[in-house]
Amino acid sequence: MNAEIIAIGSELLTPFRKDTNSLYLTEKLNVLGVAVKFKTVVGDDRADLVATAQHALFRSDIVLFMGGLGPTEDDLTREAVAEALGLELKRDPEVLRKIEERFASFGRKMTENNAKQADVITGGVVLPNRNGTAPGQWISGKYEGRERIVILLPGPPSELKPLFDEQCFERLRGKLPPAFIATRVLKVAMLGESAVDARVAPIYKRYTDIQTTILAGAGDIQFNLLKQSDSQTEAEARVEELAGLIEDELGDALYSSKGESLEQIVGYYLQMRNATLAVAESCTGGMVGARITSISGSSRYFLGGAIVYSNELKTKFADVPASILAKHGAVSNEVAAAMAEGIREQTGAMIGLAITGIAGPGGGTVEKPVGLVYLAVSGESGTEVVERKFPGDRHRVQMFATQLGLDLVRRKLM
Amino acid sequence: MNAEIIAIGSELLTPFRKDTNSLYLTEKLNVLGVAVKFKTVVGDDRADLVATAQHALFRSDIVLFMGGLGPTEDDLTREAVAEALGLELKRDPEVLRKIEERFASFGRKMTENNAKQADVITGGVVLPNRNGTAPGQWISGKYEGRERIVILLPGPPSELKPLFDEQCFERLRGKLPPAFIATRVLKVAMLGESAVDARVAPIYKRYTDIQTTILAGAGDIQFNLLKQSDSQTEAEARVEELAGLIEDELGDALYSSKGESLEQIVGYYLQMRNATLAVAESCTGGMVGARITSISGSSRYFLGGAIVYSNELKTKFADVPASILAKHGAVSNEVAAAMAEGIREQTGAMIGLAITGIAGPGGGTVEKPVGLVYLAVSGESGTEVVERKFPGDRHRVQMFATQLGLDLVRRKLM
Repeated sequence: MNAEIIAIGSELLTPFRKDTNSLYLTEKLNVLGVAVKFKTVVGDDRADLVATAQHALFRSDIVLFMGGLGPTEDDLTREAVAEALGLELKRDPEVLRKIEERFASFGRKMTENNAKQADVITGGVVLPNRNGTAPGQWISGKYEGRERIVILLPGPPSELKPLFDEQCFERLRGKLPPAFIATRVLKVAMLGESAVDARVAPIYKRYTDIQTTILAGAGDIQFNLLKQSDSQTEAEARVEELAGLIEDELGDALYSSKGESLEQIVGYYLQMRNATLAVAESCTGGMVGARITSISGSSRYFLGGAIVYSNELKTKFADVPASILAKHGAVSNEVAAAMAEGIREQTGAMIGLAITGIAGPGGGTVEKPVGLVYLAVSGESGTEVVERKFPGDRHRVQMFATQLGLDLVRRKLM
Repeated sequence: MNAEIIAIGSELLTPFRKDTNSLYLTEKLNVLGVAVKFKTVVGDDRADLVATAQHALFRSDIVLFMGGLGPTEDDLTREAVAEALGLELKRDPEVLRKIEERFASFGRKMTENNAKQADVITGGVVLPNRNGTAPGQWISGKYEGRERIVILLPGPPSELKPLFDEQCFERLRGKLPPAFIATRVLKVAMLGESAVDARVAPIYKRYTDIQTTILAGAGDIQFNLLKQSDSQTEAEARVEELAGLIEDELGDALYSSKGESLEQIVGYYLQMRNATLAVAESCTGGMVGARITSISGSSRYFLGGAIVYSNELKTKFADVPASILAKHGAVSNEVAAAMAEGIREQTGAMIGLAITGIAGPGGGTVEKPVGLVYLAVSGESGTEVVERKFPGDRHRVQMFATQLGLDLVRRKLM
């Protein structure tokens, strides 16, 4: 079975807004064994909408429309889909009553334009929207002789997601042949994409029955495996087999085999070892701390640290002797090591992480170019320093440095 | 003139990848007076691709294809577009030579599959790609009696963007009627979307000739104004007029009228006042520092600060007396004030910003619920503390707190 997702709204055709709902729906549809074959964005224009709907109904088994269900003149999805299907719209008194009640609960009277949100396509099932005014709709039937499922969903993600999960997912499953699907997400830190692919492609290319998608970020590569089969056991076994081979190939560069983020993994390891961490960040300016504290419960292992952007603060908060700063410069092996040891000392953490570098675009020299970063990890067993030259713009250098910093802590704890 | 953007690649139909190139192209096209009417994502399937191309050529003046120009069997854009146009592909010896040279420059021999990247649609102009192997193509001519411009672009953003800017933008301009377009971006901090819209909608709705798009994030609202006219002077004047009225209505809640980010504005103000800033972050864990240091040159006004996640570090780095922590708790008016004053004292900064709160989802109580945050700004003239209860999940609470923290510094400097 194939699906097509249509996002409706002229604002989605500006340079400012992108559709993200479709990624959410795609994930859910894939779990049901449904592949998404087309995604379309169309504006608030009735003729365009009708044509787009007809085209989709012609070529796809399941058509999901997102947005355009509100009360304004621009909200035309109901009318356009009804026209494309050749069906009538009827105002549903029960839905209308609920919309009126919703307004009353806010102490307001429903204005007339809101009433059209109660218009339902003939034969359509109303999908109540507990997070907004406009309900969704579900229509299944024949279109030009073919079985079709049409779903109308509200545009705001906070309305669309629960509505789809609670009212469409099981309903769809009931209409589809049973799907047996296994997925795995493997993640690798600090290896280049082409280098990783050169090692791993010969493996996953042997598993043509498994859909393998590779995503690459700054110092982060993610493998998404998906296998559909006649039995759940077989699907799981195949994915397990391929995942195992990739894990063997990549060894300890692989930090996650269940999709966890690097900051989550670092958190697990710290808790497992009953250890605590503190950071001294210069060129990353707080990004490592922000990533670590994005995890709920990180106060159990993260003490905090210092953003030592100025030389004075490197001395004050991370005990870096002024003489070392003067002799080697703030971006140096020696200062990174002193920062890691100093922040560990000052905070009493078991592990100290330090990052100092030149994020750019300014500040680089021939000897110390933009992208040069020193990272140090200090613990009971001593201090290691790593020197790296990262490519890319300021943000990318900061992202790489943050990623490597977290990875060094992970390796220290392994 | 209307355009349609088609992104090609099965990976764009997975839950993992979204098209962002189209936002970039839309911005450039709008500047040329071209509206984007449709965006489509289609997989690496020849029949689907041909049908999508035909449909687009039928309804749109300008059709931009992104991706599918590489050397693999899945790269079918050239073939499919040629078929849709009813034109032949011919191998261009000059392009082939350049591809071979590119391989040679890496010390490698071109494999045979790469040769197809030299296939050019009859009458097409080759658009050299200085960041990759596959060149783009430009075809203009009649399709079913209508004038059409077809552009083939490589998929990777690092190739697509410079190629479009350097080789398509002016070429397109030459084919289009002159466009006189003015744009403005206004930004507002820490006001609710519906509250802002209630105040501003009556104003911008009177300017039906100006396209106004509103984007809302955590504590951040952005108005994008775009006006097309017969003369540049008139376009500028109209946008200026509407922008002025919105600015008057929103007063000092408006932090930017030229699209700058809040961290940029804070940086400007600090430099203008010759002032320095230090932060003491608890629940935001380094996010404020990360935002400030995302700006190149921030070392001129940002000294750094401390991530005082534990109580001990609040005392050690931000001089918060243990007695105050014991009496009022870490999340309190008193601790926020002490943190801001302490970090200012410790670092010698002119302004100290402190944030302490409960980001959740754990850690909340009846008295101090999740989302409760205290922020303090301390300067020569004294210390102000703000208490807020932010909605949403952990990340959203952290985002709100970061945004308000920066906004408090801005207001302090105004």
